[in-house]
Amino acid sequence: MHVPVIIIGSGPAGLLLSHLLHVQGISSVILERKSRDYVEGRIRAGVLEMGTVGLMERVGVDARMKKEGIIHGGIYISLNGKRTHVNIEELTGGSTVMVYGQTEVTKDLIAARLAHGGEIVFEAEDVSLQDIDGDKPCVRYVKDGNMVEMTCDYVAACDGFHGVGRKTMPGVKELEKVYPFGWLGILAHAKPVADELIYAKHDRGFALCSMRSETVVRHYVQVPSSDKIEDWSDDRFWDELRTRLGEEDAELVNEGEVFEKSIAPLRSFVAEPMQHGRLFLAGDAAHIVPPTGAKGLNLAASDVHYLSEALIAKYKNNRSDLLDTYSDTALARVWKAERFSWWMTSMLHTFDDHNQFEGRIREAELQYILSSKAGLTTLSENYVGLPY
Amino acid sequence: MHVPVIIIGSGPAGLLLSHLLHVQGISSVILERKSRDYVEGRIRAGVLEMGTVGLMERVGVDARMKKEGIIHGGIYISLNGKRTHVNIEELTGGSTVMVYGQTEVTKDLIAARLAHGGEIVFEAEDVSLQDIDGDKPCVRYVKDGNMVEMTCDYVAACDGFHGVGRKTMPGVKELEKVYPFGWLGILAHAKPVADELIYAKHDRGFALCSMRSETVVRHYVQVPSSDKIEDWSDDRFWDELRTRLGEEDAELVNEGEVFEKSIAPLRSFVAEPMQHGRLFLAGDAAHIVPPTGAKGLNLAASDVHYLSEALIAKYKNNRSDLLDTYSDTALARVWKAERFSWWMTSMLHTFDDHNQFEGRIREAELQYILSSKAGLTTLSENYVGLPY
Repeated sequence: MHVPVIIIGSGPAGLLLSHLLHVQGISSVILERKSRDYVEGRIRAGVLEMGTVGLMERVGVDARMKKEGIIHGGIYISLNGKRTHVNIEELTGGSTVMVYGQTEVTKDLIAARLAHGGEIVFEAEDVSLQDIDGDKPCVRYVKDGNMVEMTCDYVAACDGFHGVGRKTMPGVKELEKVYPFGWLGILAHAKPVADELIYAKHDRGFALCSMRSETVVRHYVQVPSSDKIEDWSDDRFWDELRTRLGEEDAELVNEGEVFEKSIAPLRSFVAEPMQHGRLFLAGDAAHIVPPTGAKGLNLAASDVHYLSEALIAKYKNNRSDLLDTYSDTALARVWKAERFSWWMTSMLHTFDDHNQFEGRIREAELQYILSSKAGLTTLSENYVGLPY
Repeated sequence: MHVPVIIIGSGPAGLLLSHLLHVQGISSVILERKSRDYVEGRIRAGVLEMGTVGLMERVGVDARMKKEGIIHGGIYISLNGKRTHVNIEELTGGSTVMVYGQTEVTKDLIAARLAHGGEIVFEAEDVSLQDIDGDKPCVRYVKDGNMVEMTCDYVAACDGFHGVGRKTMPGVKELEKVYPFGWLGILAHAKPVADELIYAKHDRGFALCSMRSETVVRHYVQVPSSDKIEDWSDDRFWDELRTRLGEEDAELVNEGEVFEKSIAPLRSFVAEPMQHGRLFLAGDAAHIVPPTGAKGLNLAASDVHYLSEALIAKYKNNRSDLLDTYSDTALARVWKAERFSWWMTSMLHTFDDHNQFEGRIREAELQYILSSKAGLTTLSENYVGLPY
């Protein structure tokens, strides 16, 4: 069997790419290692840039998002209990973000892909790639115990940090920074703390009050990398969250039944280049950002925007220049988002060196940004997403 | 002998403070370890913020500065040979800087101080402070072999990084960052490279093309900390400068007789608090910035602005609240300038880790700033000086 494009991974990157190609009449098959239930149950970020929203519109998968998603024109930054509103919409001349969970994005994209006859092979095990340097790459996988082999023109590895795509690529340079803390996150049935997200820096560490809807909240607190879920009872979590918000905002916290709790490490990671032969990386397969600033999903979306444009140019107009420069184009935006995510993380978290020069500089940075319209504008224009 | 205020050090900080007090009728004596010739010969920075210019105006020492100083409304940033103009005046809504050497500022302030009958004791050796916790601090020094003792109400230590002021102060916390490189600087009789300063980042390191007048240039190149003056012939310097400016701008470099050449290490340093009892620190005695962004002299000026206001409030209105909060007030601005100087230094220099995550982030930072009006505005508003 031969298909134009094989996409590995049915996260938002792979699904969106498949849709973007489909609307231009280009066929693809998605291979996914996990089950549909597993994929649709993964809890991830929940803030979409307008560019990401635009891609969802372009592929016609925007009905539920527009109904249930919440437009935010700002955020709050709390520094040791003192809260400042950042009017992002005003500072950027009208840009906003959409609060809509990645889990919901994934569900919508899978449903639409299947409804349009798209092929997603779930539980495709032991995926391997051959001949990515040749004209006809070959992809093998095991489904229900049987080996399946397919050839294609191009492979898009949207298979995440641990995926086979990057591992298959020779000569990849990997740049990484691991932070000495993680985020303990909960989902709970409760009303949001405020009308917009609160990013809180406190001497005890970072906290984030986010939301999925008017009745479901997503809250986080910074914890040492060594902490375990068992260390954090629900009561301890709510107490710590209140402490980091400060006395006044603590009263706004609405407790509710916690139905998900997990700890995620924070990491910055970039693989270069993002292509080799006929293999192209997109999303977490090529780069990881710490969640501060919610760039992960949005960066996956901008990657597949570039990659889809390049593939469409090839199939429609037999132009291969966009495919040739895909990695450079994507990485230019990736590095800016990596910078923003690193910067937000550095500025808002508590590090061990907070009483040394570097720590005080980070504190001065936040003080300066909060005092400067230009500073808040840089934050805002990155938060809503730099242009493609 | 008793004087209201004893000022240690006849650099710009001490001299400006003495003037600011003088115009309000408050007497002071300046003690300076070195000779007048030495002090007037020291080569330092040369970019004045408008706030610093305003202080020079307020004390009436602005005639020569206004005649010989050059107003700059922008800078150039060169990245691997590609030069971008930063229109600071436009971005800040009308702010500029004044190019006028610190050496000239010092000469003007000394001449005016002496013309007004002010007392500056040059070559005052072995200065020591006693009873700074009491009501009447005592300052001793040796002049021409004789011990002299004076009492005062307040001591202002404007005596630089190695001065006796900070060393006398108990419980000072010192925060420091040392950079793994220095600046090799030259003064030469030549025409400036461009109409405004060029800050150049090149893979081989930072370079700065500055000027003192239309016929004297001040140029720098980043060099490893281990380099010696003897390693750098004039020819090598000019060649390296041209290389770092890139092919096109290299042709604009005018060579001329080099009459000063030195290497200065780069350091960030802050001492906290900046006061104890009746002893107050100002300028380099309390903090050092790397020269990128030219904040050293200007920070000394803002310190003495705050300190003079506090002393005037005490002597004129018997209010001591401004004296009590001097350290907090000064440090809030100091940390913002430390942040800016660290940031400019980080972004424009080449570090050993330029091929690792941190190095690439610094590169992305510069790319982002150059691409963003808001980013360039943050640079500009700090360059011209944050408000007092």
